[in-house]
Amino acid sequence: MSEQQLFFLAPIGSILALLFAFIQAKKVLGFSEGNEIMQKISASVRKGANAYLKRQYTGVAMFFAVMFVILGIMAFAGLLTPFVPFAFITGGFFSGLSGFIGMKIATSSNARTAQASSESLNRGLRVAFSSGTVMGFTVIGLGLLDLSIWFFLLKYVFYADLVGDPSEQIRRISSAMLTFGMGASSMALFARVGGGIFTKAADVGADLVGKVEAGIPEDDPRNPAVIADNVGDNVGDVAGMGADLYESYVGSIVATMALAVSAGYGFGGAVVPMLMAAVGTVASIIGTFFVRCGEKADQKTLLGALRKGTYISSAIIVVAAYPLIRIALPEHQGVYFAVLSGLIAGVLIGFFTEYYTSDHYNPTKNLAAASLTGPATIIIGGISLGMLSTLLPVIIVGASVLTSFFVSGGGTNFSFGLYGVGISAVGMLSTLGITLATDAYGPVADNAGGIAEMSHLPHEVRERTDALDSLGNTTAATGKGFAIGSAALTALALIVAYIDEINIHDPTFVMNLEIKNPPVLIGMFVGVMLPFLFSSMTMSAVGRAAQNIVKEVRRQFKEIKGLMEGTAEADYATCVDICTRGAQKEMILPALTGIISPIIVGLVLGVNGVVGMLAGATASGFVLAVMMANSGGAWDNAKKHIEGGKFGGKGSEPHKAAVVGDTVGDPFKDTSGPSINILIKLLSMVSIVFAAFILKFSLF
Amino acid sequence: MSEQQLFFLAPIGSILALLFAFIQAKKVLGFSEGNEIMQKISASVRKGANAYLKRQYTGVAMFFAVMFVILGIMAFAGLLTPFVPFAFITGGFFSGLSGFIGMKIATSSNARTAQASSESLNRGLRVAFSSGTVMGFTVIGLGLLDLSIWFFLLKYVFYADLVGDPSEQIRRISSAMLTFGMGASSMALFARVGGGIFTKAADVGADLVGKVEAGIPEDDPRNPAVIADNVGDNVGDVAGMGADLYESYVGSIVATMALAVSAGYGFGGAVVPMLMAAVGTVASIIGTFFVRCGEKADQKTLLGALRKGTYISSAIIVVAAYPLIRIALPEHQGVYFAVLSGLIAGVLIGFFTEYYTSDHYNPTKNLAAASLTGPATIIIGGISLGMLSTLLPVIIVGASVLTSFFVSGGGTNFSFGLYGVGISAVGMLSTLGITLATDAYGPVADNAGGIAEMSHLPHEVRERTDALDSLGNTTAATGKGFAIGSAALTALALIVAYIDEINIHDPTFVMNLEIKNPPVLIGMFVGVMLPFLFSSMTMSAVGRAAQNIVKEVRRQFKEIKGLMEGTAEADYATCVDICTRGAQKEMILPALTGIISPIIVGLVLGVNGVVGMLAGATASGFVLAVMMANSGGAWDNAKKHIEGGKFGGKGSEPHKAAVVGDTVGDPFKDTSGPSINILIKLLSMVSIVFAAFILKFSLF
Repeated sequence: MSEQQLFFLAPIGSILALLFAFIQAKKVLGFSEGNEIMQKISASVRKGANAYLKRQYTGVAMFFAVMFVILGIMAFAGLLTPFVPFAFITGGFFSGLSGFIGMKIATSSNARTAQASSESLNRGLRVAFSSGTVMGFTVIGLGLLDLSIWFFLLKYVFYADLVGDPSEQIRRISSAMLTFGMGASSMALFARVGGGIFTKAADVGADLVGKVEAGIPEDDPRNPAVIADNVGDNVGDVAGMGADLYESYVGSIVATMALAVSAGYGFGGAVVPMLMAAVGTVASIIGTFFVRCGEKADQKTLLGALRKGTYISSAIIVVAAYPLIRIALPEHQGVYFAVLSGLIAGVLIGFFTEYYTSDHYNPTKNLAAASLTGPATIIIGGISLGMLSTLLPVIIVGASVLTSFFVSGGGTNFSFGLYGVGISAVGMLSTLGITLATDAYGPVADNAGGIAEMSHLPHEVRERTDALDSLGNTTAATGKGFAIGSAALTALALIVAYIDEINIHDPTFVMNLEIKNPPVLIGMFVGVMLPFLFSSMTMSAVGRAAQNIVKEVRRQFKEIKGLMEGTAEADYATCVDICTRGAQKEMILPALTGIISPIIVGLVLGVNGVVGMLAGATASGFVLAVMMANSGGAWDNAKKHIEGGKFGGKGSEPHKAAVVGDTVGDPFKDTSGPSINILIKLLSMVSIVFAAFILKFSLF
Repeated sequence: MSEQQLFFLAPIGSILALLFAFIQAKKVLGFSEGNEIMQKISASVRKGANAYLKRQYTGVAMFFAVMFVILGIMAFAGLLTPFVPFAFITGGFFSGLSGFIGMKIATSSNARTAQASSESLNRGLRVAFSSGTVMGFTVIGLGLLDLSIWFFLLKYVFYADLVGDPSEQIRRISSAMLTFGMGASSMALFARVGGGIFTKAADVGADLVGKVEAGIPEDDPRNPAVIADNVGDNVGDVAGMGADLYESYVGSIVATMALAVSAGYGFGGAVVPMLMAAVGTVASIIGTFFVRCGEKADQKTLLGALRKGTYISSAIIVVAAYPLIRIALPEHQGVYFAVLSGLIAGVLIGFFTEYYTSDHYNPTKNLAAASLTGPATIIIGGISLGMLSTLLPVIIVGASVLTSFFVSGGGTNFSFGLYGVGISAVGMLSTLGITLATDAYGPVADNAGGIAEMSHLPHEVRERTDALDSLGNTTAATGKGFAIGSAALTALALIVAYIDEINIHDPTFVMNLEIKNPPVLIGMFVGVMLPFLFSSMTMSAVGRAAQNIVKEVRRQFKEIKGLMEGTAEADYATCVDICTRGAQKEMILPALTGIISPIIVGLVLGVNGVVGMLAGATASGFVLAVMMANSGGAWDNAKKHIEGGKFGGKGSEPHKAAVVGDTVGDPFKDTSGPSINILIKLLSMVSIVFAAFILKFSLF
């Protein structure tokens, strides 16, 4: 098979993924939605989520229109290739579409999962997991589709005249494709931040008034914010997560493509990332067939079932990547080990995330014990745990970068090594189809539990959905580790791609990237600070949005007669609407910070400063995101540990202290932490798109 | 005046500072210690602090003995100049001595301040401030003494034979002197971490059982941990702070000296930092005479009095630095503006620290309002506030570095610019005598308030000491901003000095400090993570030590009959002893982390990796320390704001929530945050001392 023919594996992979997602969707939709109440609740959640996404996409569309004009002007002025404004739009469109489809299927599966769980645990698992699969394969399918279309157009239409100069042709192609991650990043940031604010404002609002003030249980239909809370799971954990990983996936592929070109690998090296993705698609599809369980499954068996699928997919990639790299890069077979190092790093980060956040291990058990001396000590304990948990992921990423660099020949040719680093990110993300499926399954199970509760299904149904949900917490934690790990590697690849871009734009420009060069150093300081600033903004946004929900829920309890007695129905839609408006308003400032910072830093400190900023933000964003995700996850599970009967159980003083911890952890793990992943990639993407602009107008 | 003669200003400055400290000490000790009860309480605190320091110095002495042997072996193997082991010892000795004298005078001034306050507010201020002055001038006096002695010995005894080759002579001198900051850093780290653990364990322990469980007021003599709490103020905020700033002071001077040599400035440039310090001594002495107030002073007037002293000192330096630099560096007068930029940055960081932590401004007022919705929202609010507050200090430090670099000629000669960055750190620290005095005054006023309470002095005395103490909180916050700002600039200067050292050790070694070089990048990741790891360790250490105090206080309440009725006396000494043992044990691991990390990173990633680590740790340490100090300060003052009658006042639900915030803030602002300052300097110092070792044995 020639290199040129190899490329067509990418669109084939894309079609396979989309087809598989379609089949899974049909399968899920074939299940019963249960009784009338269940259907009604599910419809409310669906309606709320639709309303949210509609408003979000309207707002984001305006942003994209403005950016399209700005990029158009820049392209007209010769600062960008003319494809960029269009690529920007398609990136945003497909990223948004991934989230939208994921959300659609998730909101159609919640009642079906509850209903299936009333039949058997395995059936419940199958429905919830299949729903996750739709999401996972939609993301990779659309990602590969977008990439394939552009690659095809650039190679066979726009740059077809360069066919006689293949190295120049591939250079132009990769440079053009690199810039279109910005559309995906922008969309992802809006989705993650907006969704994160929505979900936590609803959650905190529902808890503060419903559970604490009115004393009604979680997911009680009398709570006016209960539907908003369920909508939040879908718009935050599903649509946001989908857009995020779409972006990592596409970003790591285009960055590595650009690195292949600067390493002089030509066509073969440039298409390897897409081929890895195509192979990963097939491996992931195969893996999904191994996810099943018996009826008497406990959490460990369930987790084992999901793990089995992921590990089998990884094993297939380990085997299949070897011949692929042998054909595409016959003289650089060391690259194969870079793929392995990325895969292994992903698995290890996932494992340690679980170690620090699951109450099967000591860290979270000890954290639960800290609740005995009150809320202050559990807060200090959780922050301390989160900070400690950053040590191993940093070492793992560091070791992975170093390994990928050297096995790919970085010792003799620097560019070879950097390509290896990019390929390790691609390797880590190659199993995305199934990893994302195990992750996106969580919110569906969570929603199913809520529906079981609200529609008064028999006790054992709730027990089964609880088993599924509790597992979902673990896979969500692992998924977060995976998302941040891949984001860090992708961001590193993008930084190097940025440096290459500068050289392409202005080959005479001599960069001084020495860390002692003041612009680099100051840029790094600014970069290290940015994730803190960004987290501050997103956390206070949740606080403000939650305040409005608190007021509204209090109002409804006071004004709607018979609500507490169950004779009147709460006005769910208003709560959803308040969350939607709050999230839309509050997401603007953090998102603009991500877009404007690289431009300001570039104008003041020059391109060297930008590189410093990107490196600093990637490192500090990685550490801070791991810390926030793990602190939040551990608080959540410490609370669940106590609710399981330890230290006095539900309602005891330690439990109250643990609830404080969990409430602090909510914006940590579901708003600020995951948004940082996207921030660090968006910063690089914006820098790349504005590279020529900065070169021209910077003070330095 | 010739350059050679100029040097003698340094020992003269040292003698002036020590003389002034001595006179102030005599003055303070001339005041009455008050009645018998006051004397007895003060004696208990003194005894406890002595016992703590004795045990600490014994432990640290063992560490120094071991390090002396290790450094001796390295010197014998030719990896260090033979002076280093001795310089290491003197640095540690003088740093420890600074803390010891500061603590001695502080524990002798607490009862005297209480007694003086019973006469008039101005008298109280004079005693407390004079006590702070003793500390401030001891630190700069001993610092300059240590520097002068070594400079004299190296120039006129050890390297006297090089008199014919002045540039080689000064190069050798500066290289030897650079390494002796490590002794000071190590001592400072033990003092800060140990003291920080002691003070917060005692504070948290006293509060949790005394205030919360037994319901007795703060500083009540029935609380067995009350003396330990007062001792803590002295060993943490006084002895720890003194050792910390001693280290910044000496570190910035020796680093800048080394940078002068690599910039080719020769003798003149090398002594400028010491001369700046000498001029600063005189300026600080003059400034102290302007600190006084009338009897009807409110907090604003009091703050104005302290500010006046600091601003006058700064103004004197602005005037005096100009002729000094004109004489010493006639061809590089732009350096003068680097001094200014450092001074201005110090003032600005101090101002913004106050803005974010004082309840006269909106951030802390809004934080207090967050207590209305419970502990979780005030915690989220405080963390968010701390994160937001990092933006301006980063911009200020960045602007200061950039300004100093370019006004000193960095645009044409890189080394000139780096020297400017070093000199800006020296400029910021030149007013240390008086800045430290205004800072060290706080714990004395705090102790005085405790003594007034415990010895049942009239109500208006406590009101006056409260006015002094409340002001002390503001100056402590400003002092923390100053400490971390100067630490960051000093650390940056040390990083550059490290790079120079490598070139001196092995002129053939080509460094690749490009940020895209994997060892640099990974080193930076590790560096960014280290302050998180370190903070986790110190926070959990406080937790463990506090648990032991809680148990002991509970035991005493249970077992000592008549304690609650006031007929029997608590066993204060045991609580002090438990804190002491806890702090000694718990400080070992974090301190070793600071010492071993650069060696491990060096061995694995090489010297390029070490530079990456140092840069990453400085940036992330700066941001994290600012965040922790400001979150903690704001929580503290939000609680005080509520206690002042807002949102329901003392005992209300919002107050309880604010107490949770304050308790979380305690280790943030008094243990972890301030220890990070020293960590980042110690990392650089250890790297410098082990430079040749790493060059020889590193994998890379």
